[in-house]
Amino acid sequence: MRYMIFGESHGPAIGVVLEGIPAGLELNLEEVQRELSRRKPGQDGISTARREEDKVQVLSGVFEGRTTGAPLAMVITNSDRRSGDYEALRYTPRPSHGDYAGFIKSKGNLDYRGGGHFSGRLTAPLTAAGAVAKQLLAERGIWVGAHISSIYGVFDAAMENAQALKTVAGKPFPVLDDAKGEEMRQAILQAKSEGDSVGGAIECAVVGMPAGLGGPDFGCNVEGIFAQHLFAVPAVKGVDFGAGAALALMRGSEANDPYAVQDGAVVTKTNHAGGINGGITNGMPVTFEATLRPTPSIALPQESVDLRSGEEVEIAIKGRHDPCVVPRAVPVIEAAAALAACQVLGL
Amino acid sequence: MRYMIFGESHGPAIGVVLEGIPAGLELNLEEVQRELSRRKPGQDGISTARREEDKVQVLSGVFEGRTTGAPLAMVITNSDRRSGDYEALRYTPRPSHGDYAGFIKSKGNLDYRGGGHFSGRLTAPLTAAGAVAKQLLAERGIWVGAHISSIYGVFDAAMENAQALKTVAGKPFPVLDDAKGEEMRQAILQAKSEGDSVGGAIECAVVGMPAGLGGPDFGCNVEGIFAQHLFAVPAVKGVDFGAGAALALMRGSEANDPYAVQDGAVVTKTNHAGGINGGITNGMPVTFEATLRPTPSIALPQESVDLRSGEEVEIAIKGRHDPCVVPRAVPVIEAAAALAACQVLGL
Amino acid sequence: MRYMIFGESHGPAIGVVLEGIPAGLELNLEEVQRELSRRKPGQDGISTARREEDKVQVLSGVFEGRTTGAPLAMVITNSDRRSGDYEALRYTPRPSHGDYAGFIKSKGNLDYRGGGHFSGRLTAPLTAAGAVAKQLLAERGIWVGAHISSIYGVFDAAMENAQALKTVAGKPFPVLDDAKGEEMRQAILQAKSEGDSVGGAIECAVVGMPAGLGGPDFGCNVEGIFAQHLFAVPAVKGVDFGAGAALALMRGSEANDPYAVQDGAVVTKTNHAGGINGGITNGMPVTFEATLRPTPSIALPQESVDLRSGEEVEIAIKGRHDPCVVPRAVPVIEAAAALAACQVLGL
Amino acid sequence: MRYMIFGESHGPAIGVVLEGIPAGLELNLEEVQRELSRRKPGQDGISTARREEDKVQVLSGVFEGRTTGAPLAMVITNSDRRSGDYEALRYTPRPSHGDYAGFIKSKGNLDYRGGGHFSGRLTAPLTAAGAVAKQLLAERGIWVGAHISSIYGVFDAAMENAQALKTVAGKPFPVLDDAKGEEMRQAILQAKSEGDSVGGAIECAVVGMPAGLGGPDFGCNVEGIFAQHLFAVPAVKGVDFGAGAALALMRGSEANDPYAVQDGAVVTKTNHAGGINGGITNGMPVTFEATLRPTPSIALPQESVDLRSGEEVEIAIKGRHDPCVVPRAVPVIEAAAALAACQVLGL
Repeated sequence: MRYMIFGESHGPAIGVVLEGIPAGLELNLEEVQRELSRRKPGQDGISTARREEDKVQVLSGVFEGRTTGAPLAMVITNSDRRSGDYEALRYTPRPSHGDYAGFIKSKGNLDYRGGGHFSGRLTAPLTAAGAVAKQLLAERGIWVGAHISSIYGVFDAAMENAQALKTVAGKPFPVLDDAKGEEMRQAILQAKSEGDSVGGAIECAVVGMPAGLGGPDFGCNVEGIFAQHLFAVPAVKGVDFGAGAALALMRGSEANDPYAVQDGAVVTKTNHAGGINGGITNGMPVTFEATLRPTPSIALPQESVDLRSGEEVEIAIKGRHDPCVVPRAVPVIEAAAALAACQVLGL
Repeated sequence: MRYMIFGESHGPAIGVVLEGIPAGLELNLEEVQRELSRRKPGQDGISTARREEDKVQVLSGVFEGRTTGAPLAMVITNSDRRSGDYEALRYTPRPSHGDYAGFIKSKGNLDYRGGGHFSGRLTAPLTAAGAVAKQLLAERGIWVGAHISSIYGVFDAAMENAQALKTVAGKPFPVLDDAKGEEMRQAILQAKSEGDSVGGAIECAVVGMPAGLGGPDFGCNVEGIFAQHLFAVPAVKGVDFGAGAALALMRGSEANDPYAVQDGAVVTKTNHAGGINGGITNGMPVTFEATLRPTPSIALPQESVDLRSGEEVEIAIKGRHDPCVVPRAVPVIEAAAALAACQVLGL
Repeated sequence: MRYMIFGESHGPAIGVVLEGIPAGLELNLEEVQRELSRRKPGQDGISTARREEDKVQVLSGVFEGRTTGAPLAMVITNSDRRSGDYEALRYTPRPSHGDYAGFIKSKGNLDYRGGGHFSGRLTAPLTAAGAVAKQLLAERGIWVGAHISSIYGVFDAAMENAQALKTVAGKPFPVLDDAKGEEMRQAILQAKSEGDSVGGAIECAVVGMPAGLGGPDFGCNVEGIFAQHLFAVPAVKGVDFGAGAALALMRGSEANDPYAVQDGAVVTKTNHAGGINGGITNGMPVTFEATLRPTPSIALPQESVDLRSGEEVEIAIKGRHDPCVVPRAVPVIEAAAALAACQVLGL
Repeated sequence: MRYMIFGESHGPAIGVVLEGIPAGLELNLEEVQRELSRRKPGQDGISTARREEDKVQVLSGVFEGRTTGAPLAMVITNSDRRSGDYEALRYTPRPSHGDYAGFIKSKGNLDYRGGGHFSGRLTAPLTAAGAVAKQLLAERGIWVGAHISSIYGVFDAAMENAQALKTVAGKPFPVLDDAKGEEMRQAILQAKSEGDSVGGAIECAVVGMPAGLGGPDFGCNVEGIFAQHLFAVPAVKGVDFGAGAALALMRGSEANDPYAVQDGAVVTKTNHAGGINGGITNGMPVTFEATLRPTPSIALPQESVDLRSGEEVEIAIKGRHDPCVVPRAVPVIEAAAALAACQVLGL
C-alpha cells in the first residue's frame, strides 16, 4: 500500500490515491466522512473556520461498495477559495512556515495562496486515506486511538491503559481528562487573544498489532516506518516511542519492561518500549508521542525578508488563522499511524 | 545511495554494501578506521571490552583509491567469538532487548549468541558506511557533528552554535563541557557498580545543507528521511528536530525563527525548526536530538518467561556488558545523519 | 519522479498523479492535449469509437503556468459511460483478457464494465503523464519518437536513422512508409470484417540521452527501467533493445557496434545495442521494439468458463471493439519511454 | 526480499546480500553449490576456463542451518586474479562491451581488469541468490526450469510442456533435443575457431505460480517485475513473454488462450500469454524467452577509439574468452526468474 497526496489550498481540489490496497474491503464511506469531520476546523470554537463541506468523492477502486484492489482515488473539492490578501506574502516568507524553503525548492514558482501544497488543508486527504487504513486494520482486530497529551504546558492525564483512548475519539476536544482539556482550551484562547499561537503533543496507540513484525534494519524497522509517516504530517517536529524522552532519564532496571504470562500469552507488565524491541513489534500496543510546533502564522509582528530586494521587513498575518492545530491534528496523527501500521503488516 | 548491513555478533564477519555511491571519490580509509575507533567499546574505561580490531576490508567498489560507482562492500571480521553462556538466554528473553520479538519474527531460528543480528556490534558497519557518506558530504562543504546532550539527567552545556561541535569529535568523552562529561561518567560508573545501566540523548547537527531540498510529502520530507535512518540505530527511541519537545511548551512568537540577511544570504536568527520548514531544508544547520534508552542487558535480576514451558522465570545477565552505550553511539548517530543527508541531497 | 494512475473505464473519472516533478517547467497543456488526441480511438476509421472528449484537467502542481514541484494531478472525466451488456461477461472471462486473473486478484470484486481498471482507456492518463515527461526531456534536448514496425506480418520500412521518426508523429497512421501503412490498415480491416483482431509491434527511439547513466545492477540498469515502464502498457508482451531478437542470430563481429569519432564525440557506427552497454547509456539513441498482442476482445466465438458453476461455456463479444490497438498505442509507448527516460536521468 | 550484488572480476571477492528473506528456511548449501557448478565456465569444452572453485561462504543470516530472517550474505573468493594484459584495454573500449559507458559513468575510475563489476563473473552471486530463491519457491510447490531455445539460428525442439524442462537441468548442455544441442555446440566451436562469438536465446518457465498475483500498474505488473530482474543479467537484450514476438504475427483468434476446466481448476488450453493476463498471473506457468547478444569480446580486429587522444584505433582481444555465454547463462536466467517470482509472491 502506497499513497500520494495532491492539491493546494486554493486549487480546484485536493485528494489522494491509494495504490496496492487489498481487494474485498467493504468500504464504509460514512466512517471516512466522520474522520474528516473530526479534522475540520471551526467546530471547537477556537479557529475561525474556512467554510468547507469536505465531502469526499471516490473516483476509482471501489465497485459495488467493495475495494477492487485497483488504485483508490478520493477527491475533495475546494469550495471556499477566496484568495484574500495572500499577495502581500508572496515575497515575504512567514517565519517557520514552509514559505521560504518552498520558494527555493520551487525556484520561485510557489503557489503561495493559503500555504498552497504546504497548507494544513492537505491533512484532509491524509485523514481520508487513514480512515480507509483504519478499516483494513479493524478487519484484523487492530484499532488506533489518540489524545492530546499536552498543550502549552497543560498536560492531560497519563494514559494508564490504551483502552481509555476508545472514549476519546468521540469528544470534540479529545483528551482523557476534560478538566485538563478546558485548561488547554483557555490557553489556546488566551494566545489567540494576544495574536499568538501555541504548540502541544499528541499521544497515540495502535492496539492489536501482532508480535514479530518489522526488523532492526534500515527500511524495515517499525519505529522508522511510523516516523516516516508521522513526519509527513505538517507541524510534527518530534516522534518518541513508549516512554520516549523520559528514557534518557532512566536506569535499565526502571526502563526495561518485565515479561509475564497472561492468558497463555507473553506480555510485558509495563510498556516503556512502546510495543517495539529491536525494531520489531512485541505484541504490546505500539505507542508514541508526536510533538507539534505552534502554528507559525500569527498576528503579532515578525521579522522577515523581502525575497526580491533582499531587505529585512516586518510582517503580521491578518485575517483568519488558527492559534493551535493540536486538537484537530488528533485524527490526522491517528491516520498517519494507521497507514504506518498497514505498511508494517505488509498490506 | 542505498545500503544493506549484514552479520551477527558471533558470526564469521559483519559488513555493509553501499549501492549507488557516486564515482570518483578519493576514499580515505584511515578516516573510516578513525570513525570505527570512536565507536569501539572499552576505550572510555567504562565498558569491559570485547577484544576486536575492527579492521575494515574493502571488497569492491574502489579502484586505485577512488570509488567506481559500483557497489562498495566493506567487511569486518569477528575475531573474538567466545559464545560464553549465551545458551542460558536462548529461551528466556531479556526484558526490552530484541530477544523475544526476534524469536517470534525468526520463528524460533534466532541467532541468540551475543544478540545476533540485533547486537550493538552491527553499528560498526553502519559507522563505516557513515564515514564514507561523510567524505561525500565533505566534498560538498557539508559536515556532521554531535555531542552527548544528556545522560541519566546530567545535561551537557547547550549547543549555542553548531561550530562548537567541531571540537567535540576528537574527545574520548564527546561533550561540550568536560566537567559535565565527568559527571556523566560518574553516573554511568555508579549504575555499573549497581549492576544497572543508564540512558541518555545525543544532539547532532548537519552543517552546510543547501536550502530547498526535500518536500512536505510522505517519502520525501527531510524529517522523515532522517528519522528513518536514525531509528535504524539500535537504542534510539525518539527523534526530535530543532527545539524538539520544547516546541510543545512554546508560543508561536517564541518558536518562530525570525529571518535576517547575513552576507547577502537569508538566514534565521534562531534555529528552533532545526533547519527544516515544511519538510524542506531552509539552509540552516539540520539539528536534532536522539533519545537512547538504557542498555537492556543488566546484572540485576529481571522477570522473564521460559518460551518453551511458558513459565515465568527470573534472569540476570552475567559477564561483560555495557552500562551505557551513549558515548560510543555519538559517531553512530553522526553516521546515520550523514547517510540521511546524502539521501536528501539525492546522492 | 513517480506516478500513480487511477480510474476505471466506466467510473466517474480517470487520472494520474505525478510526484517529484521538477519545479519551473512551463507546462504546455495544448501539447498534452495533442498527445491525447493521437491516442484517441476512432479517428483512423478502424475502430468504432467511444465518444470521449478526453479533456484533461490539472488539479494541482501548476501555478501561473509553471510546475511548482508539488504533485501534479491530472483528471479526465468519463463522459460516455453506457455500460451496455457487460453484465453478460461478469462471470465468463474473455480469453487472454485480464478478466479471469483480475477476478481472482480482486476476490470477485472486479469492476467488469468495459474492462474496469484493465481498460485500454487507462492509457489516456499514462499518455498525459508521458506528455509532461516529454516536455521535461525537451528542456534537456531529448526527444522521443516511434513508428509501427509491423502489424500482422506487414513490416514498415526499417528505421535507418532515428531522425526519420520526427516526421511520423504527425501522421494519422504513424509509419515511415505510407504504402506499408495502407497494407497494415487493410490487414486490420480484413480481420475486423471477420470478427477478429491483429497484433503488431512498435519501434521507438529516445534521442539525446547523455552517456554514462544507469548501471549493470538490478534496480538501476537502463533496460530494466525501460522495460518496467513499457510492460505497464496493456498489450505489451515483449521488449527488445537495439537489434533485439536478431541478436540471437548474429555473430559478435556483426552485432558489435564499432566505435568512431564524430565531431569530437565518441559514437558507434551501428546501434545494435540500442544505446545501452552494460546497462548504461552510451550516448547513442536508446532504441527498442515492443511487441503488442492482438486485442483479446473479438466477435468470433471463444471458449470460456462460467466462474460460478465451473462449466465450460462459449462466448462472443458483441458491440464496439477494437480490431487493433497498435496504431493508437504509438503515443502510449512514447509516453512510457519518456517516463522511463526521466527516471534514468534522475528527474 | 531485496538483494545487492557486489564485487569485481579481479577484486578480492564477489558476493550478494539478500535482505528480507523469510525465516525458517532449511538452507541447502549443496544445492546452492550445485547451481554455481552449472554456471561455471570451462566444463562444456567450449570456453577456456578461469580456474575458480566458486565456493560460496555464508557470512550471516543462517543459524543452525536455517534462515533467521536477518540479511543473508554470501561471499565467493576470487582466487584466479591474473590481471594479464588488461592494461592495453584501459583506454580503448571493446565495442558493445560496458567499457565505454562504464568509463563515462565512473568518471574514468573504471576497474577495467577483466570487465570489473561488468564481468560475467558477477553472475555467480546472482546464481547463488537465485538458488536460495528456488528453495523458497520449492517450499511453496513452485519450480523454475529453462533450456537453450536457440544459438546462432539453430533452434531447440519446441517446449510442448513445461514439465519437459525437469530433465534439462542435469544436462551439461541444457537443451530438450540433444541432437540440436550438438549442432549448437558446433556452431559455437566454429565461431571460436574464427575468433568470433555467437548469440542465442533461453526459454524459461516458472511452474506452480498461483493465480491472482500482480496487477496492471507500473511497479506491480508481473511482466515488469520479471523483466527488471532479467535485464540485470548481463547479455540479455530482449524479454518476451509467452508466444512473444510471434504475437505480432497472430490474430486474436489464434493468440487467445481458450479456457477449460481441468480437475476442477480453470486452466487455458494454450499458454500464448505466458501465464500472465493484465499484468496478473493466471495460474498457468509463467513463460518467457530471453535474447542474449553474442559475447562482445572477440579475437577479430575491431574499431575502437583511444579515450585519451580521441584517435580511432583497432583492437583485438587476445587470451581466453568465451565464444558463447548462452549455455552457462541457463542457470543464471533461472536464478533471475526465481528472484522475480519471489517478489511477485511478496516474499
